[in-house]
Parts: sequence; C-alpha cells; structure tokens
Amino acid sequence: MASVDVPVALLGYGTVGSAVNRLLVEGGDEIERATGHRLRVVKALVRDPAKERAFPAGEGVLTTDFRSVIDDGSVALVAEVMGGVDPTGDYVLELLRAGKPVVSANKQLLARRSAELFAAAADGGVQLRFEASVCAAIPVIKVLRESLVVTNVHRVLGIVNGTTNFILTRMEAGGGYEDALAEAQRLGYAEADPTDDVSGADAAAKMAVLATVAFGSRVQLGDVTYQGIEGVTPEHIAAAHELETVVRLVGAATLVDGAVDVRVGPALVDRHHPLAAVEGPFNAVMLQGDAIREITLEGPGAGGTETASAVVADMVSVLGTTGTGFLQNDACWRTLDRLPPGELRSRFYLRIEVKDRPGVLAHVAERFAAEEVSIARLTQHVVNGSAALDIVTHTAPAGRVDRALAAIAELAEVRGRPDVLRVISERGV
Amino acid sequence: MASVDVPVALLGYGTVGSAVNRLLVEGGDEIERATGHRLRVVKALVRDPAKERAFPAGEGVLTTDFRSVIDDGSVALVAEVMGGVDPTGDYVLELLRAGKPVVSANKQLLARRSAELFAAAADGGVQLRFEASVCAAIPVIKVLRESLVVTNVHRVLGIVNGTTNFILTRMEAGGGYEDALAEAQRLGYAEADPTDDVSGADAAAKMAVLATVAFGSRVQLGDVTYQGIEGVTPEHIAAAHELETVVRLVGAATLVDGAVDVRVGPALVDRHHPLAAVEGPFNAVMLQGDAIREITLEGPGAGGTETASAVVADMVSVLGTTGTGFLQNDACWRTLDRLPPGELRSRFYLRIEVKDRPGVLAHVAERFAAEEVSIARLTQHVVNGSAALDIVTHTAPAGRVDRALAAIAELAEVRGRPDVLRVISERGV
Repeated sequence: MASVDVPVALLGYGTVGSAVNRLLVEGGDEIERATGHRLRVVKALVRDPAKERAFPAGEGVLTTDFRSVIDDGSVALVAEVMGGVDPTGDYVLELLRAGKPVVSANKQLLARRSAELFAAAADGGVQLRFEASVCAAIPVIKVLRESLVVTNVHRVLGIVNGTTNFILTRMEAGGGYEDALAEAQRLGYAEADPTDDVSGADAAAKMAVLATVAFGSRVQLGDVTYQGIEGVTPEHIAAAHELETVVRLVGAATLVDGAVDVRVGPALVDRHHPLAAVEGPFNAVMLQGDAIREITLEGPGAGGTETASAVVADMVSVLGTTGTGFLQNDACWRTLDRLPPGELRSRFYLRIEVKDRPGVLAHVAERFAAEEVSIARLTQHVVNGSAALDIVTHTAPAGRVDRALAAIAELAEVRGRPDVLRVISERGV
Repeated sequence: MASVDVPVALLGYGTVGSAVNRLLVEGGDEIERATGHRLRVVKALVRDPAKERAFPAGEGVLTTDFRSVIDDGSVALVAEVMGGVDPTGDYVLELLRAGKPVVSANKQLLARRSAELFAAAADGGVQLRFEASVCAAIPVIKVLRESLVVTNVHRVLGIVNGTTNFILTRMEAGGGYEDALAEAQRLGYAEADPTDDVSGADAAAKMAVLATVAFGSRVQLGDVTYQGIEGVTPEHIAAAHELETVVRLVGAATLVDGAVDVRVGPALVDRHHPLAAVEGPFNAVMLQGDAIREITLEGPGAGGTETASAVVADMVSVLGTTGTGFLQNDACWRTLDRLPPGELRSRFYLRIEVKDRPGVLAHVAERFAAEEVSIARLTQHVVNGSAALDIVTHTAPAGRVDRALAAIAELAEVRGRPDVLRVISERGV
C-alpha cells in the first residue's frame, strides 16, 4: 500500500507535545509499516512560539491562533496535549464537531466533560481517544475498549497515582509520611504543592475515566468518593505488615447489581495480590471480568515520553480504524445508578486508640455486634497504659462499619476517631 | 451506523470453539455497539458432528468438509481453534490466499509456519491475528502491534507457561518437584504427560511468537534455546530464597546490537521484580522499550473461555480495521541474525557440589578468573563432610560462564556437573 501523508496538529507543544513530534519523526518508518501512513505535524498551538523546545517544531508549525488550526482543512487528526479544562475543552469540542478526530492526554477534561465530548465526537462522526489520560503508556483504555468487548468487566482496581505509591512504598522502608513526601519532592516524583496527588484527587479523576470506559456509563469526578494518604502513619504500615499486607492508595470501581461505586482510598492489600507488587512511582490496573477472570497491566504511570508514546499509539489506532465504524458510538451506552456508598461490601481494617481498661474490648465488640459487623481478627497493642486495637472485619457493608465506628468513637475509653482502611485480599474478590 | 451481519466460520468446535460461539451470541450487543457489526457463526469444521458440545452450534452449522467452509462465499472471517499443525496449517494458508482474514489460537502453527502464513496473508490482502496463541486472554500481541508501534521494544521477559509456574510456586511452600507436579495434575493444571510443559517446549513456542512480533524478524521454534524445570530442586528454591529471589521459568527474548537471543529456562528472579509476583498458574509478560521503559501484562495463561475471549477480541479487531491498511504488511520486515548463545550477557547463579577439602575454593575461583567471570557473592554450605557452593556472578557472557563450569566440573573435588540458572535482577535490565 502506498504511503499516504497525513497532516496532523497538536494543541500544546510542551514536554509531551515535543516528545510526540519526536516519536512521529523518529518512528515514521514504523508507523508507515503498520498503517501505510506517515504522520506529519503541520500545526502546533502554543502560547509563546519563541520559547525553547526539547524537540523543535518545523518551520511555520507553531501558532498562537486556534483558528489557524481548525481552519486548516488539511489537518486530519489532532492531539490535545496542552492540559487544562478551559479553553481546552471548547477547542476539543469544536474540533470534534468539525469532523476532526481528537486524541487527548487530559484526564481532568475527560473526567469533567466527557458527556459533551462524546456527543460532539458522535456528531462529527469521528473518534475521540484518550489512552494517555490515564496511566501514561499503560494501554488500559485500548484493552478495555478493544480486547475486552465481550467480557463484562465488573471491577477495576488500580494504583493510578505514582506519587502516592512512591511515598507509601518509601514508608515501608521506615520513616514517616513527611520524610517520604520530602524525598518524593527531591526526586521529582511529587510537586512543590503535592495536594492534587496526596489528597487522592488525581487518582479520583483517573478512576472516573476508567469506570466510564469499563462500565459504559458516565462517571464524573463528582461521583467518586476519595480519601488521600496524608493520614497514613508508620503504625498503619506496621499493622499492615503484621497482617501480611501492604498499604496502597487503591482506586476501585465496582459494579454491584447494576449500580456503580467508585472510590479511592488507602487500603491494605494482601501481599500475594498483584497490586501489592507495584512499587515506587509505578502504576497498575487490574481488570476483572466474566470471560477473563482478571488481567493486570503495570508500568510507569507518568513521564513525558511515556505519555507521548500513548498519544502516538492513539493516533496510529485512529488511522487504523477510520471508516470502519469501530468505536464510532458513544462509549456510554447506558446510565447506571450510583451505589449508595454505605452499601459497598468489603473487609475493613480499623485502628482504635483506647484507654487500657477492663471492659473496653466488650464495649467495642458490642458496637460492632449491634451493626452485625463480624470481626475476623483482633490484636491489642499496649503502650504506656494506652492501647490500640487493630481489627479486621469480615466482609460487611461500609455503612454499617461507619455506624459502628461512630458509636465506638463516643465511648469514654476511646481516644479520637478510629482509622478505617479497606482490605483488598483475594484475587478476583 | 446500521448493523451489518457478518457470517463467520470456525475451524474446530471443541472447548474453545464452543466458547467463541457462546461469546459471540451472548456478547452480540456489545460487539454491535463497538463495531456496528453482528458476527454469526455459519460454519464450523469438526471431525464428529454427533459429539455433544458445551454450547450447541446452530442448525446446519457443523460440517466435516473443509471445502464447504472455504467455498462459502458469505464467510467474511475465520477463526482457527482446532489446533495441530497438519492439516490445520494448509487450511489456514488456503483461507488467507482466498482473501479470508484468519484469527488463530495456535501457537505451534505460528511458531513453525509463520513465514508462509504471513506471506499468504499479504497475498490475500487480509489480516492474520493470533492473540490467543500466547497467554490466552492477556492482550500482549495487540499491545505490541498497536500500542508500541514507535517504541523500539528490545526485550520481552515472560512467564508464559502456567503449569510450570504453578509447580515452582508450589515448591516454595515446601516439597519436591514430583509432589508439586502430582498436585498440578490433580488440579488439572498439568496433563497426564506433562513433557511439553515441564521441558520448556511450550514456553519456547510462545517466546518464538512473541519475539517475532516484538522484533519484526522471524523467530522459529528451532531458534529458541530452552531448558525445563525437571532439574529444579528444593535446594535451588532455598538458595533463591536466601538471595531474596524466587525461581521462575523465564522466557527471555533480547535484542543485542541487532542480533536476537531467545531462551527459556529456570531463573532466579529478584523478589521486587514484577515477574516474581506471578504466582500459581498465571502468566505475565514484561515488554521493555525505549519510550515506555517497561510494561507488564499479567493474567490467566490458559482456559477455554479466556482463550475464546482473545479469539473474539481478534475478530472484533479485524472488523474494526478492515480496509484501512492497518497491520496489512508482514509483521516481519527485517531479518535479524541470531546472537551466538554464548554471547548473551547476564548474571548467573551456580550451585557446585564439592568435597569439603582445603583449597577447593581456590581451585574453583581460579577457573572463574581464567574466564574473567567475576563473582558477586559466594556462600558455602557444609553438610556431612560434603559441601555446596552457591555462587552469584556479576554480569558475564553465558559462554564464559559455561566454559568456567566445564573446567570446574573436571576438578577432582567437584561432584557432578554444576547447576546454572540465570539471575533476573533489576527492572529494565
């Protein structure tokens, strides 16, 4: 098949944009062998054309004017690598409506405006792909949309934030949260203001995107309950170790009787679980479905070249499927209810600081019994007349555990609000 | 887009074939949403139409006559799930030449006849896909061919045989090879004659397929050096544990200065390496490349439904890319030399049984020094006047290590031929 020249445009030409252009140039032969096409960046929207770039754009490619991109009739495909929600979202909408396929690396955009974006893609009769928006080069979106078409995926478990995973695995080697965060910042794994990562917000946006694709029903950022790792202590890490688990920030999207639950929070993960093996700034996503049992994909969750690799893979995939009707429909073909958060069933780990007095255990146990929460394991640590109870429950609805904890927190012998973390134990459960 | 009816044929209608038909029927709506097409099995080639099937074929679908399949002009796509190399290979060749895209689950066929098959696909102007031939539902072929187009993949490391992985992880819990094999047979993870699995032959065929796709150069079964797990002893498992590693049957395809090395053998894998976390009958493949660093895919490596899921994913992908020129070229676009096996550089673990006499260590050390193999770690275990040396080398060419061992085997103080296993330590190395 003769090579076909395909002019493409980039929105943004920073670290990722430069790397996309470099991969398109350096990998031109590979792309042509795979697709019969050669992609060439003809326009790149930037704020400051004078700025130095890691890989220079061609003569006349950089522009500050969005109109010169959308009005360029030769542009067959656009990659959005500028980030942000505004004005990026409007640009992408306009491009899709104008019949330009778009590839986006923007999780915030997808997590906030996917309904409009998908509708615009359907209107324009073009594809919207967004592999790079979640876990960089790990091809989880492609696998969900193309390999697992007939597998009813009912659960997605993910370590989707590298910063927090670095911090948590660092804490396993000793030291507290603040030290580990400082080291992450020193190594460039965490930003000066790490809030978006450590609060779980970044992971929540990614889980919203993954849940939307996996279940075919719109999940927005606001639908995701999330909790960060700021409260994780060396005591939690030690208790996890004793329970043959490790602490990880786990995103979990679960389909329960036709309702969706998506949450992010620190969890105790059994050390034989594939997610427990994910160390440092790596990401991994486990997909559980009827026909496949489970598939886990692991890799670096960030990085300019890694993200660019996913953008280019999407561009190649758009070329490879255009005109076939493939992935032409809105990925969201149904509207599922949100599971009331208290109804999600799980095992839980609880840490309760108590005064070491006779009867305290009985009082605590009564509160669990009143909510029909059954205890699988209890350990009492005594330190200087004070004590901590480490408790692991059997599977129970989250709401009942919360109510039991609220009642326990009111006991005179209990100090402060007890901690609660999910336990992710068996594979496929 | 209006639904388009796509008649398809199956070669074979056993466990996998029945499951493919079931997934096509039960997942018909999902496939139509993704592709705009509805696949319908109109012919299935079998030996005995009267045999009972897990999911019955439609009226008039089963046939014993290959001609009725290839002569059915309505058939748009064929899935080969009958296994075997002869006559299967000739059927597939004929179908491809007749312009029918083929999806195959047959690793032996791919590992032995891929050159002819790819040429026939190119002649017929159609796709040949074969995801299910390696690691069942784990989409490693799709990821290599579609997501990693511009990443120069230079190494593929895999645990690609579930039977041996079950046996090796079972041995970690105590007990010898024979006990673990018996348990694998009892649980259905190993066949009555387990030779193909435990000898490494099955893994070698899969690594040939993976290397071919990853490097774009033909690797046949005969190009793969392999060693099985029959010689793995509780002493190796214990030594691995002491070295903070685990024993796994590792397939490794490596590109070294434009030459290819593909080998399968038991190896000591660092316990922080993603492959060390693969337990029981699971499979995993790590892909290392320039732009992505590394991506690891893990999942069940076998199973009728899992394999059928990969076959259906390939059928969906053929529909989704037909007519675009995508993956239309022979995946093998270059001819790489085979690396002389002795030139592959690695770290090695060696176990040498010696008589506990003064001077033995010096004699052994001299033989390594003569081959310029540097020792990273040495432990001597003394048992009843006899002793075993556990040695880990620094990175060295395999041939030099082999020559040193041959010289050591001739020492009067050494009992028998020393054992040698590769060490897979750092990520990305």
